[in-house]
Amino acid sequence: MSERIVTACVVIIGNEILSGRTQDTNLAHLAKQLNEWGVQVREARVVPDVQDVVVAAVNAARTTFDYVFTTGGIGPTHDDITAECIAAAFGVPLVMNEEIAAVIRRRPAPDAVMNARLRMARIPEGATLIDNPWGPQGFRMGNVFVMAGIPRVMQVMLASLEDQLEGGAVTRSRSITAYVSEGEVATALGAVQERHPTVELGSYPFYRDERYGTMLVMRGSDEAALERMAAAVKEAVAAGGEIE
Amino acid sequence: MSERIVTACVVIIGNEILSGRTQDTNLAHLAKQLNEWGVQVREARVVPDVQDVVVAAVNAARTTFDYVFTTGGIGPTHDDITAECIAAAFGVPLVMNEEIAAVIRRRPAPDAVMNARLRMARIPEGATLIDNPWGPQGFRMGNVFVMAGIPRVMQVMLASLEDQLEGGAVTRSRSITAYVSEGEVATALGAVQERHPTVELGSYPFYRDERYGTMLVMRGSDEAALERMAAAVKEAVAAGGEIE
Repeated sequence: MSERIVTACVVIIGNEILSGRTQDTNLAHLAKQLNEWGVQVREARVVPDVQDVVVAAVNAARTTFDYVFTTGGIGPTHDDITAECIAAAFGVPLVMNEEIAAVIRRRPAPDAVMNARLRMARIPEGATLIDNPWGPQGFRMGNVFVMAGIPRVMQVMLASLEDQLEGGAVTRSRSITAYVSEGEVATALGAVQERHPTVELGSYPFYRDERYGTMLVMRGSDEAALERMAAAVKEAVAAGGEIE
Repeated sequence: MSERIVTACVVIIGNEILSGRTQDTNLAHLAKQLNEWGVQVREARVVPDVQDVVVAAVNAARTTFDYVFTTGGIGPTHDDITAECIAAAFGVPLVMNEEIAAVIRRRPAPDAVMNARLRMARIPEGATLIDNPWGPQGFRMGNVFVMAGIPRVMQVMLASLEDQLEGGAVTRSRSITAYVSEGEVATALGAVQERHPTVELGSYPFYRDERYGTMLVMRGSDEAALERMAAAVKEAVAAGGEIE
């Protein structure tokens, strides 16, 4: 049952996320989808459209985690600098990719517009493509996957990656909703966590329909261990209040 | 007009964000509120409930940015490790704070429950408190502000901080919605950005009501410069399509 743990870091590139103008939803989608493929998101960073910062974040991430997934900054405008940043991070030049260029040329445009759009065809030398049925592709360079920031485009790019990722253990989860306050069950939960170290037990308080409660979330890759912990958690909280 | 730029990093602590189970909304709220006070969020990190990782992220952030704001991990259960992590990051012991303990003791409970809840009264030696009208306080240690993860609690804690923050330039923004594709205006926008370097010009494509468009967002601290750029952007995109 001790499958390898495969880890990932998500690097979200974009001033609009850091200004609060745009609410990121890509991290949650990536985390859920990647986990189904046996890749666990262990950290995320949100960085501005500033080359030095992006390069440093990508280089730190790609040497620390098995995979890195970036979102944002691959459009045709001056603030789309992700391709340059990845090339700089790997110390390779940007080159025009004819396969992406062909996709871009399918939609006719005056020369000036076409030249601007062709910015999206520049990828780091040695990179391979990430499919996008709707337009210009993303790319993979080493263990770094570079995708769009627009959620529906990011999602369709990600969907094409399953075969390229070598996954390990998949994290399964169980959750129990208990109408008790966290304090009432904290000691018992701490003891349960100690007795079941292979499963991670999270405790999240909530207030809903004028009642306080605690959502208990168990996560781990061993189904039998999860079941054992779930039984222990139920026992631990049953004394305190109603379980849902 | 060259007010000091005051920067911040947000450190979001919690496995539930990295698993995709919980959608973070604290970053966007923090970014918007802090900017109104002249503090610019320049980076964010999402880290798991793992002490070494939290300590490293906090130490990197507090030496790089003027302020650090953490969310999450200050409840009473075993997975709430933020106070320990901040103490470790600063190399000081955790101590029982009597002011927080008094708040916790207001709500009666059996000894075992009270002892668990009193975990929330432990703060790093030398920390000061962040008000919370609804329950146990958060705390400030040096330039690091430690707040709850539950959005409405984080928000009420943040609201109390205005007087403690020394802000600098406030970023103002203008936005223009243009029904043109990014490619059509990319070259013109790049030229506008070059001629107006003090204002940051972001370009965000969208698809709405079956029409493609581009949202142009200008951000900067100088109102006059913003107006000049807005006029230039309008001129640049007017040739391409309808402006809203």
